[in-house]
Amino acid sequence: MKAAVASALRAARRVLAACHESPDGDCLGGALALCLALERAGKRVVVASTDGVPAVYRFLPAWERVTDRVEGLGSFDVAVALECADLERAGRFAPVLAACPVLVNLDHHRDNTGYGHLVWQDPQAASVCEMVYALLAELGAEVDEPVATCLMTGLLTDTGSFRYSSVRPETFELAAELVRRGARPDRIYELVYESRPPSAVRLLGLALSRLQLSADGRVAWSVVDEAMLQQAGARWEDTENIVETLRSIAGVRLALLFKVEPSRVKVSLRARDGARANEVAARFGGGGHLGAAGFVARGDLEDVVRQTLQAAAAEVQTGSG
Amino acid sequence: MKAAVASALRAARRVLAACHESPDGDCLGGALALCLALERAGKRVVVASTDGVPAVYRFLPAWERVTDRVEGLGSFDVAVALECADLERAGRFAPVLAACPVLVNLDHHRDNTGYGHLVWQDPQAASVCEMVYALLAELGAEVDEPVATCLMTGLLTDTGSFRYSSVRPETFELAAELVRRGARPDRIYELVYESRPPSAVRLLGLALSRLQLSADGRVAWSVVDEAMLQQAGARWEDTENIVETLRSIAGVRLALLFKVEPSRVKVSLRARDGARANEVAARFGGGGHLGAAGFVARGDLEDVVRQTLQAAAAEVQTGSG
Repeated sequence: MKAAVASALRAARRVLAACHESPDGDCLGGALALCLALERAGKRVVVASTDGVPAVYRFLPAWERVTDRVEGLGSFDVAVALECADLERAGRFAPVLAACPVLVNLDHHRDNTGYGHLVWQDPQAASVCEMVYALLAELGAEVDEPVATCLMTGLLTDTGSFRYSSVRPETFELAAELVRRGARPDRIYELVYESRPPSAVRLLGLALSRLQLSADGRVAWSVVDEAMLQQAGARWEDTENIVETLRSIAGVRLALLFKVEPSRVKVSLRARDGARANEVAARFGGGGHLGAAGFVARGDLEDVVRQTLQAAAAEVQTGSG
Repeated sequence: MKAAVASALRAARRVLAACHESPDGDCLGGALALCLALERAGKRVVVASTDGVPAVYRFLPAWERVTDRVEGLGSFDVAVALECADLERAGRFAPVLAACPVLVNLDHHRDNTGYGHLVWQDPQAASVCEMVYALLAELGAEVDEPVATCLMTGLLTDTGSFRYSSVRPETFELAAELVRRGARPDRIYELVYESRPPSAVRLLGLALSRLQLSADGRVAWSVVDEAMLQQAGARWEDTENIVETLRSIAGVRLALLFKVEPSRVKVSLRARDGARANEVAARFGGGGHLGAAGFVARGDLEDVVRQTLQAAAAEVQTGSG
């Protein structure tokens, strides 16, 4: 399938590379690498992201080229959807993708629905950027420093800095190659992970200092409410890494963060060692993956906490691991 | 020099591999990899660590073989000191090393004093385990899964999971090879970095919630005292990652943690972006590296903080970056 995709791109004059909603470093890095490499080959490329580029990724080469507007896009010979499980994940660009004469569905996840004319899935790949690199190699495209930086950003962020079980020897080998071509994993790490606002670090502190354990230490949980946000000078989006830190505690299999908004409680779940975050979330009408899930509850915080902890305790006792 | 070291080891029957005081994953991993590989070649090997094996590294293959006792050691044909800047860094094993007919000084740091009969330094290597791997390759030793796990632990911990500027293409290439031989970076990461006691996470929370900034946000600092330890149920050794988290704040070039013990204040410093932690520590009689340093102060906390912040402010204003 790689060869078919390469051949479609070789024949194309205008190419659209589309990210999924709430784009991450992998789909942005992959789309921008494609864009830069194909433009060197004389093609016109548009990179589309319905949610734009999050501030933390505004160091990526050519990031300001990413458009969130459908108006005036024109038509394309080939469109590539990166990591969109279904076409709707491309947000407002979904109709544009659907209208293309050749739609390429490029993904390294297993849950892809298989839409499009050319469907290339590689669940072995730890990041979609590994697939984009293979595609560029097939095309004979030059991987210069900006392209290497884009691809390294995908490798590094989609593997948590090479520490997920998805990392293969090939992932490390590609990383070596990208460093040879000028990518700087140290700089990328710092820009993505070590540039948090002080308010977010203060909020993390407040939440961690109120850490609680249940189910014999297998469940860790904490609460963030608006008073804590105010105390830290933080916003809701600053809560991101709290639940991951809770999961990193020795013996913890399920971590929960209760975010108390004015009329609802948003619950974030993270699991490891065989516990299933999505099973717990599903009991309350939510969803997600094995490792990360969430749901929204109405009602009293105390009730929500009690019921969630009950379900969590059942999960960590029955789950494998 | 690698060939000379290999040849000395080839001729040896009894080998001593010695770690530095407060051993880390790199010297423990390197020493144990040497031990396992040389024993397969029929040699008798003792791994020595004056401070034993920290709990977090008690997953390393054969870790329980590491001795902290000099008594009854016997004599050795060759001793290898791993990452000991000077011989004293081997602690109570220094005299044993000094008495060996062949003392190998193996280090990847620049500040080594050059003691010993065979001095092999490679400041290009991101970890001493990369040097041990090269040595095993020179010896034609088999790298099986336990040896690969030991070496991967050194690579991963000495590079902060492949994110320090010391990481070279060769580091990633070796990582690929070690995964092929059965090493599991995901497991190693979890065991080393995601197995913190709840008390340490609570203490991190208390310290972060009291984060303060100075020098226009370029200096971040916090305080840990015994009341906070008590509140979190934590110990002084649980303070380890607090100052690293302070350094990860956007715009921060120097991070300081003041540990208020009964009769003294211990100050830990971490720097980045050209600021020099050791320059600041040196003004107060302390020492360390560019990125990490420390000193001990007597006197009133308020005075210590004020003087340190003054020196820190001067450093982040004058330093390059």
